[in-house]
Amino acid sequence: MCGLFITVEGPEGAGKTTIIERLRMDFSASGVPVLATREPGGIEIAEKIRTIILDKEHTMMDGRTEALLYAAARRQHLTEKIIPALRRGTLVLCDRFIDSSLAYQGFARGLGIDEVYAINQFAVNGLMPDITLYFDIEPEAGLKRIAKHAGREINRLDLETIEFHQKVREGYKLLLNRFPERMMEIDASQPMDNVYEAAKNIIEEQLKSYETK
Amino acid sequence: MCGLFITVEGPEGAGKTTIIERLRMDFSASGVPVLATREPGGIEIAEKIRTIILDKEHTMMDGRTEALLYAAARRQHLTEKIIPALRRGTLVLCDRFIDSSLAYQGFARGLGIDEVYAINQFAVNGLMPDITLYFDIEPEAGLKRIAKHAGREINRLDLETIEFHQKVREGYKLLLNRFPERMMEIDASQPMDNVYEAAKNIIEEQLKSYETK
Repeated sequence: MCGLFITVEGPEGAGKTTIIERLRMDFSASGVPVLATREPGGIEIAEKIRTIILDKEHTMMDGRTEALLYAAARRQHLTEKIIPALRRGTLVLCDRFIDSSLAYQGFARGLGIDEVYAINQFAVNGLMPDITLYFDIEPEAGLKRIAKHAGREINRLDLETIEFHQKVREGYKLLLNRFPERMMEIDASQPMDNVYEAAKNIIEEQLKSYETK
Repeated sequence: MCGLFITVEGPEGAGKTTIIERLRMDFSASGVPVLATREPGGIEIAEKIRTIILDKEHTMMDGRTEALLYAAARRQHLTEKIIPALRRGTLVLCDRFIDSSLAYQGFARGLGIDEVYAINQFAVNGLMPDITLYFDIEPEAGLKRIAKHAGREINRLDLETIEFHQKVREGYKLLLNRFPERMMEIDASQPMDNVYEAAKNIIEEQLKSYETK
């Protein structure tokens, strides 16, 4: 692998999608080959798996079935899209990855971080992100930002209680402690320009240290 | 749980389906409530997952994605069908379960028995079979039996090489050593009446020891 693998995590409304798009355009403009993606990412098998997860008719869907399906879609997106890009030396920016499963299913839904980590270790087979940017924001502030944002529809997760979103945040904080080398926290309550600069600086640092290796 | 959970394992052509149907009829006739099932077992979510696994268009399907999908379908079939039956005190006879994944994907396909066991432990969440009957037969003899059998079509797995089927058998032998308390070997090269008697005796012993607990 010669590309750098960056994932971006955090609650809805933290600005992940906006910042990733801006990073993609700027790195691309300065000649860095870059791929911005998020699961299922147009990969047919992963899209079909995601359709099963999101089908509102599936009221009997067990939490463990759901976690296994997320891991399956992750694996396929990884092998068909991320790994080939990294092999070409592309900078990969992925909107949510393994830590979303750990924070949402593992911690907030109570399946257990270690348990959900085990099935995801099987899915990624050693290919963890080089760096994970965690965009931290109070759940209320994130939801307000979504409400203001024109082009973004409210989704199923937005409608969870504030308590749930607080639990997700608590889960992410546990992960920051667990993976201090890989995960970097960015205060996403700042103006978006500042969030962008913080994210860009971290990635540029990584690219530099990566090139000198 | 007050029902007994029996799984039946072995290669194609070992007679699993025939014996299970005969066991189901006989136990049922003698007043024992019994459910014979196999994944995906008519469970909508599990059926949809199985459709993704078996779709011949999915030539890009990664081995790990497939193993995660099998585990997901297993989980859903377990929660919607097997667990409710066991709660009602039903004897459950399941044609293939966790050991098929371990022998086929874990061992014969080379993903690793421990790795595939880890995702399946997540899927079953502690609910392992009380007893697993392993029907042992030489791959050649099993395939011959399929060829003779009228109502049974040749499937994708039948068309694998004999070397693959030998590897599956080797995988099952490793599992017999690993789970000696749970797994019982039956010589499936015997006439079917003898195989049936051996299977029935083991289950009746279990039912007895279960009732006196």
